Amino acid sequence: MNYYYTTQLHNITFDEAIQKVTEQLQKEGFGVLTEIDMKATLRKKLDVDFYNYKILGACNAPFAYKALQNEDKIGTMLPCNIIVQEKLYGTIEVSAVNPIESMKAIKNEALGFIATEVNTKLKNVIESL
Amino acid sequence: MNYYYTTQLHNITFDEAIQKVTEQLQKEGFGVLTEIDMKATLRKKLDVDFYNYKILGACNAPFAYKALQNEDKIGTMLPCNIIVQEKLYGTIEVSAVNPIESMKAIKNEALGFIATEVNTKLKNVIESL
Repeated sequence: MNYYYTTQLHNITFDEAIQKVTEQLQKEGFGVLTEIDMKATLRKKLDVDFYNYKILGACNAPFAYKALQNEDKIGTMLPCNIIVQEKLYGTIEVSAVNPIESMKAIKNEALGFIATEVNTKLKNVIESL
Repeated sequence: MNYYYTTQLHNITFDEAIQKVTEQLQKEGFGVLTEIDMKATLRKKLDVDFYNYKILGACNAPFAYKALQNEDKIGTMLPCNIIVQEKLYGTIEVSAVNPIESMKAIKNEALGFIATEVNTKLKNVIESL
């Protein structure tokens, strides 16, 4: 299995895509807790050009709470990221992490069940776009 | 191998620990791009009590840039997280993700080399505390 789900959007601007992703995340119970603008970060830190690339940190609070109660180091892998990138101008690619793959190194059955449910929700977000 | 490195600090407040971690991250070339206060988030979203728990999203810009150039979906796993938690009052536990483990699902040799270098840096941060 791949470590991400991905889809491509056309006839939409980068900012509109971010808004659409945020709305679909909300429908699945995720709030966006963090937003990293990689283009701006790389410009600021390294003075290099990069294309539009944002990392949204999405958190479904009830699942995060259950996960933290079962595995207190799980914060090293939270929130779940959705990236929006425009590598090819006019083509917006949206990808969500597959938490089953990213959390494979964690040996904890209770967490496995939570990751499976969160996985379904993130997959739904990508398919809904 | 475990999916995190961890250490415990005593005779230091939670906020002092956050500052110390941030300083040590800087020495290894990481800026803190995001900070999630899980205690406040869980209070706000679920109205539950939780102990002090913060997730710092750390990014070493030159390595992030190299990683993005080699694997454009790697943003689903960036930044690298360091968590600071006070589960037991007076004992501050600091844990950093082990990027070799979290990125195991990614089949990309160039990325493997980058993950190994970032891994050493994060391990240094934990050992320096």
